[in-house]
This record gives sequence, structure tokens and C-alpha cells, in this order.
Amino acid sequence: MLPRPAPSRFRSSEAFDLQSFLATRTRAVNRALDGFVPKASAKPRTIHTAMRYSLFAGGKRMRPALCLAASGACGGRESAAMPLACAVECIHTYSLIHDDLPAMDDDDFRRGKPTNHKVFGEGIAVLAGDALLTEAFEIALQCRGWPRYSHQTIVRELARAAGSLQLIAGQVADLEGEGKRISAQHLRYIHERKTSALLCCAVRLGGMSANCTGAQLKALTDFGYYVGLAFQVVDDILDVTQTTEQLGKTAGKDRKAKKATYPAILGLEKSRRIAEGLTQRAFQALKTFRGKALALEALAEFLLKRDR
Amino acid sequence: MLPRPAPSRFRSSEAFDLQSFLATRTRAVNRALDGFVPKASAKPRTIHTAMRYSLFAGGKRMRPALCLAASGACGGRESAAMPLACAVECIHTYSLIHDDLPAMDDDDFRRGKPTNHKVFGEGIAVLAGDALLTEAFEIALQCRGWPRYSHQTIVRELARAAGSLQLIAGQVADLEGEGKRISAQHLRYIHERKTSALLCCAVRLGGMSANCTGAQLKALTDFGYYVGLAFQVVDDILDVTQTTEQLGKTAGKDRKAKKATYPAILGLEKSRRIAEGLTQRAFQALKTFRGKALALEALAEFLLKRDR
Repeated sequence: MLPRPAPSRFRSSEAFDLQSFLATRTRAVNRALDGFVPKASAKPRTIHTAMRYSLFAGGKRMRPALCLAASGACGGRESAAMPLACAVECIHTYSLIHDDLPAMDDDDFRRGKPTNHKVFGEGIAVLAGDALLTEAFEIALQCRGWPRYSHQTIVRELARAAGSLQLIAGQVADLEGEGKRISAQHLRYIHERKTSALLCCAVRLGGMSANCTGAQLKALTDFGYYVGLAFQVVDDILDVTQTTEQLGKTAGKDRKAKKATYPAILGLEKSRRIAEGLTQRAFQALKTFRGKALALEALAEFLLKRDR
Repeated sequence: MLPRPAPSRFRSSEAFDLQSFLATRTRAVNRALDGFVPKASAKPRTIHTAMRYSLFAGGKRMRPALCLAASGACGGRESAAMPLACAVECIHTYSLIHDDLPAMDDDDFRRGKPTNHKVFGEGIAVLAGDALLTEAFEIALQCRGWPRYSHQTIVRELARAAGSLQLIAGQVADLEGEGKRISAQHLRYIHERKTSALLCCAVRLGGMSANCTGAQLKALTDFGYYVGLAFQVVDDILDVTQTTEQLGKTAGKDRKAKKATYPAILGLEKSRRIAEGLTQRAFQALKTFRGKALALEALAEFLLKRDR
């Protein structure tokens, strides 16, 4: 039971070759990450092997792709956005490693492979997450600054999105919500922080790296916000509708952990309509780019229609 | 059995009122930290309460004091060094929270209080550490930049000291060294990273915040390096000679965990001579300041003679 095909108003896939965009950008991001992060042979080998194990476990590089696409929509050079795209991916990966720990979501599989702590033990997994979080800031600092967007502005953006009022707040609220009755409003609060904050940050950083205008940054902020929310709703739908093999991570986990999700609160059909509505709003935000944000449109559509 | 009184060549205490320096700086640092970190009432309360629990658990604020003293030695204003002093303290506190986790050193007491995970649970303790690490970068970015020391340079310094080649490398090597025979050389490698890296960083950042000269930065680097090493040797000595009550954390842990320490490898007497020799070298590094680094001298002496 896949998410329902998106309505025909999403036409970006006809105008844009997303598959080739994703293939080239994933390769470029992987190459850049490989250059930024210490080699596995760097002492102590354990920690660098563990960091690289999760960083190169076959992630879809959606956040870096969004960052690069946002930079492109604003006429920027992707090389200027690359350190920020990689920094966001490091933060995403660290959050998955810590989230999978027994004390948190307690997950054994991620991207079809044993989770970090299953391979390296809990102590090293905690440290590998810490190291990727720290590395993210070192990488982000290699970005180019502009008069409008200084290094201070850009890196603070990253710290805030990853911090205790955003990404970590979402993780905490998610942990604390398990087994409790939660309103759709509180669920939105969790999704805004757990998923939308970092995704929106990726898009905004792409714009900043291109020295975007204020109007462009506003448009990217709205786009990232809605795509981030849609992303999490689709994630919750897939947890119910797909198998562990299809997802590469344990399916049906949310119900088992008695987590509040849109499907649990509102049912599958309504959840699908919500995901579509959010993606529609993300599309609307891109109007100001007058057809120059095709990659962002195609990514939003892809994230809605994905099956894993 | 206290560490032997330091030889008479350490005379800084006669020329400098360290007690009053520490009292005023601790108050100022606590006030600044209180302003930088979200209030305990900020949503989600759990995470901010947990962050503040460890951040305000009565730490001695040695790293901030060293940072402020280094700034003073270079003629800087302490207010310019304050964000960096606080950022280093956040990183120090995060590393203690994660280090105390059952998967790492598994400690129940720190600074005379139950450790973070004993009060808030392991999941929140991991996230509180993550949040303090992230917060450190947001705070550090509030520093003042100079043509010689840009925000990029300053914050990269912090990221490197806390990263997988320094602080985290030390934690990993420490974890992996338990129960193994370790050479004095490898032990030095561990201490350089586990302790000296962040302490040296605190001192260097103080200098940078004061727009110090290259010669001053070199002197501060040497000073921080040797004081950091001496600090860890004294820590290892105190673990053997003091009680849990005196230390505020579990005493005798190193021997129980079969950790390599200077006392274990070389005996107490030789370890004391090593700590004195390292402090002596730290003093020598300060010569270039021609008597303007009294606070740093007094701190080095204090760290050598401390009994907890």
C-alpha cells in the first residue's frame, strides 16, 4: 500500500530530470564528505571508522540535495553551498546514531545495515555522534561569507537548527510523547522541530551561500518548513504501509512504541491529504523564483511520492 | 595523602590574590552562562533543566578562568573573552555528561551530586550533552572577531580541540586503553587529547579574543599544553590519594577500571615530580609576558597544589 500518487498539479518531474540531478549531487556530496572527514586510518581508527560507517551507509542525501538546489535557485555556485550541505548531513547522521541508541529509539537496523552501536558498541556510538556534530561546525566554517551573510550568521543558523530549541527539542518531545495521547497541534510542534528545522535550515543555508535576497530567503524558509513537515508525515505513513525490507529500517516501530503519528491520530487517508497539502504549499512558496527552482520542485514531489 | 607541596620556585601566590580572582570570575562566568543558555522554563523543560543541572553543578570553572586570565595577560577586555570562556565550559560539561554514561565510565557521582543520567535517564543525558555541545558553538559565535583572528579562525579552533582528533580521540583512547598495558608515551598521547587539548584551547581563545601577537599565542599554547598535562597527572594522583567525599566523584575509579595512569605506571612519587616539572615548563612559557601573566601563574600553581 504505497502513498497515493500525488495529484497532477505536481508537474515538475516532466520538466526536470531529477534522477540525474540526484545521482550527480549524491556523488559530489559523497566526494566532498570524504574530503572533509578524517580518513578511517586516522588515529584513533575506531572513531573514524565508526563515523564513516554511518556517514557512508547509503543515505539518500536529501538535505544536501535540497541545500544545493536552493543555492542553484538563487543563482549561486554549488561549490559555495557544498560545505553547508555536508555540515547538515553530518548533523543529520549524528542525530540518527544517537536516536538509534538503546536509551532512545533502540533500533538495530538503519538503511538496511546494523546500527552504529550494534557494530561499534554504545560508547563508541555516542562518541561517533558527538564527533560528527563537532565536525559539522568545522566543515560549515569553511563556507564563503558575504556582507549580508557572515560566517557568524551562517554558522549560527546551523547551531540554532540543531540546538535544544529545535532539533533536540523535537527528539525530547518525541521521547516524552511515547505512550501518551497527543493532540494534532502538539504533533505538529514535534514535527516542526524533529524534522522541519534541519531540512528548512539546509534550504536556507543553500540560499545564504548564494547571497540570496531577503525575498528569496523568505520563500526558501516557507518552502523548507512545508517540505519538512510533509517529509515527516510521509515518513509516518511509510512506517505503517511498508515492510522493514522496503524501508531498510524497522517498520511498524511507531505503533509498537505507541508514538503519536498522523496516521495514528487522523488515519492514513487524511494523513495523505495533509502531506499533499503541505507539499502544495511548498510549491506555492517557490513562485517568486519564476521557474528557476525546478530542482526544488522536483525534490518536493519526490519526497511526497517516495516509497522508502 | 595530599600532593606534596610545590617547591618554593612557585611564588605567584604571594604576588596575586587568586582566591578573589577565582571568586569574581566564577560569579561572572555563571552569570554569563545563565544568560547564554535557554532558561529551565523554555520548552521542552526537561532538556533545559538537564543542561542546567550539570552546567551549574558547582564546577570549578577552571577553563573559563584560564581563558579570562589569558585574555588579561594580553591586555584584552574580559568581556570579549567571555563567550569563548563559556563555550569551552559548555564543551567541558557535555564531555563529562557523556563520559559518565553507563556505556562509558559509568559513574554515579560528579561534583558531589548524582550524574546527569542518574537524575534524568540515559536518553535525556545523551541529548543534554548534545545540546550543550551545540550551544557551545552558538555561544562562541558571539565573540568579537579581529582581522588577525576571524570568527572562522576562532570557532574552528574550538571545533578542532573538541573534535575526533583531539578531545574525542582522547576519550576513545582512554576507553580502549582500559585493562591494557600502556606505555608512558601512549599515556601522554591520551592526556594530550583527553585534557590538554581543551585546556590549551581555552587559553589560546583568551589570547585570540585579545587580538594577541603571534609570540603571545605561541607562549599561551605552550603554557596551556603543559598546564593541561600537569592537570591530568594531578587528577590521576588525586584519584589514588583522596576519598570520594573529598573529590565529589568516585575515588579509586582508575585502578578499578584498570586504567593506565601515571601513578599506576610510574608510582606516586615520580608522578608528583612529573606534575611539578610540567608546571615548571608552563611557568617558563609565560616569561614573554614579563610579569603581566600573574593570574595564569597563580592558576597553574593552584592546579598543581589542589586537593580535589
